[in-house]
Amino acid sequence: MKLEHIGIAVKSLEESDRLFSRLLGKANYKHETVEREGVTTSFYAVGESKVELLESSTSEGVIGRYIEKRGEGVHHLAFLVEDLETEIERLQAEGFSFLSTTPKEGADGKLIVFLHPKTTGGVLVELCQEKRG
Amino acid sequence: MKLEHIGIAVKSLEESDRLFSRLLGKANYKHETVEREGVTTSFYAVGESKVELLESSTSEGVIGRYIEKRGEGVHHLAFLVEDLETEIERLQAEGFSFLSTTPKEGADGKLIVFLHPKTTGGVLVELCQEKRG
Repeated sequence: MKLEHIGIAVKSLEESDRLFSRLLGKANYKHETVEREGVTTSFYAVGESKVELLESSTSEGVIGRYIEKRGEGVHHLAFLVEDLETEIERLQAEGFSFLSTTPKEGADGKLIVFLHPKTTGGVLVELCQEKRG
Repeated sequence: MKLEHIGIAVKSLEESDRLFSRLLGKANYKHETVEREGVTTSFYAVGESKVELLESSTSEGVIGRYIEKRGEGVHHLAFLVEDLETEIERLQAEGFSFLSTTPKEGADGKLIVFLHPKTTGGVLVELCQEKRG
């Protein structure tokens, strides 16, 4: 397991890109919209991890609702695993719940699932795996 | 710059150690109390980064106040830099403010400073450097 990225909910990708490029001392390496999640993302490489800025691309999106409730800030932590299925089974055996155990396509060439934050101490945890084939 | 650790505010280190050791599939590698910060910490190695659980060791501590206001969850992101002084100067020139620009001793053999979250989009950002000599 390694920390693949930190997802940060932002109101405006344009403003936050200006902020995070100055903070991290480098430009983002891409923008990517994930239609089915209703988000546009911006990625920064930081060592072996990434910072992922998330802007809601619809008024109904999860990121928009998150910001309304909690303001801008860290939205989720994503851990990279070799095999999602194996890790989902291990964690279910440990008593963790998932928002869904069916992997879906995330940004940056990943398959992703989210653990239920009620079982992870208030931290929204994503597991991701590189898409194969 | 690399992501040194993610600081997570927890109510009970005992309960959260049980949770995070199952989640990450490994035991913590140490507990450490930082008296002047009023916290007891628990560290987990995750690739080149760490997860740092933070429990308030006093009723007046910053972590206790954070949890009262926001609940348990991600408290700060810490980026490792070669030289704090150089990085503080770079970031001040970029318009960032600091809670204090005088480095203090943090956990795990580090000197640390915090940027003011008003200037970093709601994310509390720590910069840290290995203690020398």
